[in-house]
Amino acid sequence: MSEKNTTLAELSRMVDGELHGDPDITIHGLADLDSATAGEIAFLVKASHVKTLEKSQGGAFIVPHAVSYEDKPLIKVANPYLAAAMIQNFFLDKPFQATGISPKADIGSNCDIREDVSIGPLVSIGNGVTLGKRVKLHPGVVIGDGVKIGDDCLLYPNVTVYHSCTIGSRVIIHSGTVIGSDGFGFATDEKGNHVKWPHIGTVQIDDDVEIGSNVSVDRGTFGKTHIMQGTKIDNLVQIAHNVRIGENSLITAQVGIAGSASLGKNVVIGGQSAIKGHIHLGDGTMVAGKSGVHSSQPKGSVVSGYPAIPHKEWLKASITFGRLPKLYAELQDMRKKIIKIYEKIFPDEG
Amino acid sequence: MSEKNTTLAELSRMVDGELHGDPDITIHGLADLDSATAGEIAFLVKASHVKTLEKSQGGAFIVPHAVSYEDKPLIKVANPYLAAAMIQNFFLDKPFQATGISPKADIGSNCDIREDVSIGPLVSIGNGVTLGKRVKLHPGVVIGDGVKIGDDCLLYPNVTVYHSCTIGSRVIIHSGTVIGSDGFGFATDEKGNHVKWPHIGTVQIDDDVEIGSNVSVDRGTFGKTHIMQGTKIDNLVQIAHNVRIGENSLITAQVGIAGSASLGKNVVIGGQSAIKGHIHLGDGTMVAGKSGVHSSQPKGSVVSGYPAIPHKEWLKASITFGRLPKLYAELQDMRKKIIKIYEKIFPDEG
Amino acid sequence: MSEKNTTLAELSRMVDGELHGDPDITIHGLADLDSATAGEIAFLVKASHVKTLEKSQGGAFIVPHAVSYEDKPLIKVANPYLAAAMIQNFFLDKPFQATGISPKADIGSNCDIREDVSIGPLVSIGNGVTLGKRVKLHPGVVIGDGVKIGDDCLLYPNVTVYHSCTIGSRVIIHSGTVIGSDGFGFATDEKGNHVKWPHIGTVQIDDDVEIGSNVSVDRGTFGKTHIMQGTKIDNLVQIAHNVRIGENSLITAQVGIAGSASLGKNVVIGGQSAIKGHIHLGDGTMVAGKSGVHSSQPKGSVVSGYPAIPHKEWLKASITFGRLPKLYAELQDMRKKIIKIYEKIFPDEG
Repeated sequence: MSEKNTTLAELSRMVDGELHGDPDITIHGLADLDSATAGEIAFLVKASHVKTLEKSQGGAFIVPHAVSYEDKPLIKVANPYLAAAMIQNFFLDKPFQATGISPKADIGSNCDIREDVSIGPLVSIGNGVTLGKRVKLHPGVVIGDGVKIGDDCLLYPNVTVYHSCTIGSRVIIHSGTVIGSDGFGFATDEKGNHVKWPHIGTVQIDDDVEIGSNVSVDRGTFGKTHIMQGTKIDNLVQIAHNVRIGENSLITAQVGIAGSASLGKNVVIGGQSAIKGHIHLGDGTMVAGKSGVHSSQPKGSVVSGYPAIPHKEWLKASITFGRLPKLYAELQDMRKKIIKIYEKIFPDEG
Repeated sequence: MSEKNTTLAELSRMVDGELHGDPDITIHGLADLDSATAGEIAFLVKASHVKTLEKSQGGAFIVPHAVSYEDKPLIKVANPYLAAAMIQNFFLDKPFQATGISPKADIGSNCDIREDVSIGPLVSIGNGVTLGKRVKLHPGVVIGDGVKIGDDCLLYPNVTVYHSCTIGSRVIIHSGTVIGSDGFGFATDEKGNHVKWPHIGTVQIDDDVEIGSNVSVDRGTFGKTHIMQGTKIDNLVQIAHNVRIGENSLITAQVGIAGSASLGKNVVIGGQSAIKGHIHLGDGTMVAGKSGVHSSQPKGSVVSGYPAIPHKEWLKASITFGRLPKLYAELQDMRKKIIKIYEKIFPDEG
Repeated sequence: MSEKNTTLAELSRMVDGELHGDPDITIHGLADLDSATAGEIAFLVKASHVKTLEKSQGGAFIVPHAVSYEDKPLIKVANPYLAAAMIQNFFLDKPFQATGISPKADIGSNCDIREDVSIGPLVSIGNGVTLGKRVKLHPGVVIGDGVKIGDDCLLYPNVTVYHSCTIGSRVIIHSGTVIGSDGFGFATDEKGNHVKWPHIGTVQIDDDVEIGSNVSVDRGTFGKTHIMQGTKIDNLVQIAHNVRIGENSLITAQVGIAGSASLGKNVVIGGQSAIKGHIHLGDGTMVAGKSGVHSSQPKGSVVSGYPAIPHKEWLKASITFGRLPKLYAELQDMRKKIIKIYEKIFPDEG
């Protein structure tokens, strides 16, 4: 897979690891425990799974500090998953190959496009578009008028960016994703007809954001929808108009965030959850999957359920939920006993 | 933003308002309270937020009748949100600019296309397609054979309309949306193999419908899937085969409506809700977000939860849900007391 | 609709039916009970709905064995829905018409493409792509480098297949669907920055799979995401990296399946449900709509709710849920009575 060769010592230095074994072993790639071969390094995330090392054919292993295994060359680190990702990026990193602008792409007027880009066939770029260095646009990408895209961005096939949106550097957007569609904003007249609110705002996506496939990010009604630096968004997510997502947040698949909600940084939202409009989730808030958050949450909250409550309470309540029929039956039984007692003790109140 | 100038008096007449202040003030645009400048009109939706007017730099304000504010020019109306939308549409409305058919579009045979259209590059139109006046198709739009589209429709990039579907006038469809894919219909044989039902029906979308991005609208198995006049659909919504949605309904993001469900007019469905197949929701039904509606609902119902129950009952039940563990513990405590009492009062029944 | 004519006897033989009535009646198509005309055969799924036959104008009927109706020609079968699908496929089946490769498509180098294909305009095919016989690619389809597609596949407009994915024969993929985007895999460093895991795996889709519109199927981090033979996937479904779905499963709209989950064969997942990562659902597992499955399930399980519990238990608990406020009030009432009794019976324990 990779065309690079390096030594175990070099990899250990790269991830600030503690090397056990021959530092001069040559490694040419990273693989998982099952598929790794002699020239590859594999990784073990949990010390408790140390027995899985035995069967692996890998030539060396990235492991947690707690692991010792005499027969295998090891790099011990605090976070093996992180170290493995860093090593994998090292092996797979390749210099950008600019292919220029395909003659089968359609480019508007007054664009500012660097020479070292790769614009595929069947790409459509509007007027007044700015593209940074080493931008790669796959076939079927459509970029609206006045869009600005920074350096080293990668847009996969059939991505759409509406007019006037701004995208930072090193942003990755997967296929089918739509940036800048109109928000769902209508005013209803006395006859029940819905009058459309024109959406004159934009979308701003900051550096190092990655957005999965088939995501919808609506533009602001006024002002902007803003996804801040380092945030990662999974597939099929709905980001409504004027939402603001802070730095380094993780938004899992099929989440919906309603209009004007604002999320702090390092927020994590589990799959299929919904965040109500106009509320705020403080920094580091964690929302479990399938939750519905109806009210603002302070920094560091961990919530679950619909409406969302503290996760620990929800866990207990959820277990009780399955016991409800039994609980109900018991209550009826107790009621009979109480009435019988009551009538005997307080015969006059019957 | 706008190139129009008008007087406050003219705007007041437009929205049937009550003018307070200099009728001759010149206004050239609408903005929100935060960003409005001297030549712009801003709007206040709730009378209780009247203090936010103080900081706004707007030149005039649309406000509810209950608001008075001596120092500022005001237009008082019953529904400020509606009046503001109407004024915004006035300022932003521009005559349609027909750019004709791009030479980089691919047009089939036997099409009926007016001259005053704007068909972008990399658009594909099948055979026998009819397009009305002032239709705009952005790059990447694909229109199947035999599709009929009315006047003044706007299809954003990478929309797909399958063969034989019908779209009315003034319909807006956002990027990534798919109209007319096959429904999820299979018959399963005794070996567990699924035999596909060919979907020979179509989709009919009536006038003034707007559909968000990445929406899926399946065609009928037989007959049609039908979205009626004035209905608005948000992003990432699933509309299954043979669904019928009445006039002026609002379907929020990530809702799923299963096969052959029928909705009346002015129905509102909150985000991430699901409507079971073959049921009917009466006119004006409101379904809260994240609900699952399993049974038909009479006109004017307001329901929540899964399975959905009347909203007021659900609110009470939801609050109790968090108390379940405490309730369970209390019940165990009461049980002990009762048994103790019971044994004392009825020693023979032990 | 169809251009074929056949006799009732022939249709009966085709579905292994029991013929009642004139075997020589000519039938030229299948329709539903409402729209069927004299030359068409209609079908009745449930014997209890036999009265609906009366109004139908159809020339013959496919019915369950339990139905008798003297005045109408009938084909009696065990599974009328299946028999009708088979007959509908017979009537609508047409020989493939190869239109070749559109001069407006963009084809990469070193591709292996048969002559009898239909590749539309504005299709983009990368380098080293293999396409089988009678493959049809609609406009806007983008196929990445090294993709292999088997015979008789049909890809609707604006489908994206990322590089190196493998698709079997007779696979149907609807518009907007994305095969092979990167999984949502990041390792987080001590500062909260998310380091991307490169996804070097692929997607393998086996024969006879159908995938709806706007579906996202991520590639493996290592290894592959694998959808096995005969499985059908509805619209807007999320299939994460390294998921494995067994043969002949049915995945309904808006379901999310998290990373490395594995499903057996003949699994059925109801709409908007979520399956947690790394768990296993045994063969024939059925998951009701809107459920969240957190733990592995043995073969043949039927589960509902979130967290999912056995369906029968969930049904009972759900009914009790609406009664929670009443149950709570009763409990408070009983508590008062008990305290009063208790104080009377055990005056010293107060």
